[in-house]
Amino acid sequence: MRLNEYLSERQKLINEELDRYLPGEEEFPNILHKAMRHSVFAGGKRIRPILVMAGAESVGKDKELVLPTACAFEFIHTYSLIHDDLPAMDDDDLRRGQPTCHKVYGEAVAILAGDALLTRAFEVISANLSVPGVSAAAVARVVSIAAQGSGCAGMVGGQVADMEAEGKPADKDNMVYIHNHKTGALFRAALCAGAVLAGAGDSEVAALDKYGQYFGLAFQITDDILDVEGEAKILGKPVGSDEKNAKATYPALYGLEMSYRMAEENVAKAVDSLRHFTVKAEPLRQLARFLLTRSY
Amino acid sequence: MRLNEYLSERQKLINEELDRYLPGEEEFPNILHKAMRHSVFAGGKRIRPILVMAGAESVGKDKELVLPTACAFEFIHTYSLIHDDLPAMDDDDLRRGQPTCHKVYGEAVAILAGDALLTRAFEVISANLSVPGVSAAAVARVVSIAAQGSGCAGMVGGQVADMEAEGKPADKDNMVYIHNHKTGALFRAALCAGAVLAGAGDSEVAALDKYGQYFGLAFQITDDILDVEGEAKILGKPVGSDEKNAKATYPALYGLEMSYRMAEENVAKAVDSLRHFTVKAEPLRQLARFLLTRSY
Repeated sequence: MRLNEYLSERQKLINEELDRYLPGEEEFPNILHKAMRHSVFAGGKRIRPILVMAGAESVGKDKELVLPTACAFEFIHTYSLIHDDLPAMDDDDLRRGQPTCHKVYGEAVAILAGDALLTRAFEVISANLSVPGVSAAAVARVVSIAAQGSGCAGMVGGQVADMEAEGKPADKDNMVYIHNHKTGALFRAALCAGAVLAGAGDSEVAALDKYGQYFGLAFQITDDILDVEGEAKILGKPVGSDEKNAKATYPALYGLEMSYRMAEENVAKAVDSLRHFTVKAEPLRQLARFLLTRSY
Repeated sequence: MRLNEYLSERQKLINEELDRYLPGEEEFPNILHKAMRHSVFAGGKRIRPILVMAGAESVGKDKELVLPTACAFEFIHTYSLIHDDLPAMDDDDLRRGQPTCHKVYGEAVAILAGDALLTRAFEVISANLSVPGVSAAAVARVVSIAAQGSGCAGMVGGQVADMEAEGKPADKDNMVYIHNHKTGALFRAALCAGAVLAGAGDSEVAALDKYGQYFGLAFQITDDILDVEGEAKILGKPVGSDEKNAKATYPALYGLEMSYRMAEENVAKAVDSLRHFTVKAEPLRQLARFLLTRSY
């Protein structure tokens, strides 16, 4: 298996599906649908949809079974980026090298485009019921998983904690809380959602949840490292922006070398979480290792 | 049946349930949960939860069957108010006579509290599955109904259309579109959600949907009339604020007397939609008629 091909094939598939599950720009009110599409199609690695699909594949089911839910997780991720970029939040003009939603469509439409994407996510999860082989019980459970991962006990809680921590002395426990919630919770939910729709057993779901937690931490640590080392044109955002905003990061707290070692450790734990899985979990194993060599 | 007692009994019940389905203020991050609770408990008539319950009752089921979903619709309504009040939107300092969420907790937290309430709504709809007698298929369908009613083809779409219409010449068709979507869509979804959870047949759901459409228009027309006639201390917002913002309203387009007649007409149609329902739909019939005498 070659990870690059695996990823690009799935990114292409997801981009087509995202298009199917979004209202057309010609639909009224046009500006809303343009704003939603602007941000969904402004690039992105589609990691969360890939995790949903890989979650289903790792327990032996086809990725086609979970495509709507895979899209839903990208909608949730995109809504969070739109709201994060708002002037009242991070006040970012650029995201992935392109103007942010509110820079193009204004703040009010950007807020509502985010709201609409979040809402659409749950509509699309419900639409997964129309895929043969998916049970209503699994769909209802996935609604709950997605909501918990993205709501006040998950992503939004992490975002608030992150804001609250700004300007205060860096605190290691708090930084781990923030990362586990702001980034990790949605990764975990994506993996579990794919597995649940695929009819996975409790122990399999629990193992994927563990994988997601370690994957999330490794992702965040390597993201922090890239922020220090990376190049502006690759990252699409000003390098060192976290430092400028005085946020607690792994390199700031532990130094670059120690941070890299921590990333390796979390990758190893992520891979180990899947020790009872067959070769079908190989993409997840490779995806975790890939974090250590990522350049974007 | 006395409508006042019916309403106040249900408002009390819903307020207790809303408390149960929200994280406590002592939970981390506290400011987020305080902000969510601030807006949920800043008053409100709990009309949407009452419509969910009445939808279930009108087809012969107990209101206890749908309590979580009833709360979910209030969360959706509250999130929409928080975001509507933001400086980038209506920029309101007061709501129901109390400081708006962003005035107390700041814009960033208010945006996220709205996001968290919307997300929580879907989590709580999923939790309705734990009530005996509710099927997973019904829950999955209600997720879709709630998302459609509140998303880009419903409430959010109406809100964007409303913003886009500002400052332009009043257009009657557009005004009806705005009201049907901004207010009506969530009423309809609430009624249908209650009925679907209660196992109603398609024709019953369709009748309640029709009722909700007429109810929504009558609600909006009487709201417009109140805005002209009402007293600031009862309404909790500056009287005539719609006129100030040059929004298309029924009194502005049709005059007060004609607007009142249109409200009567929509109430009659709403009541007529329920002609095949038993006495169990009496609360809904009375609720529609009540709109013509409301003073808040």
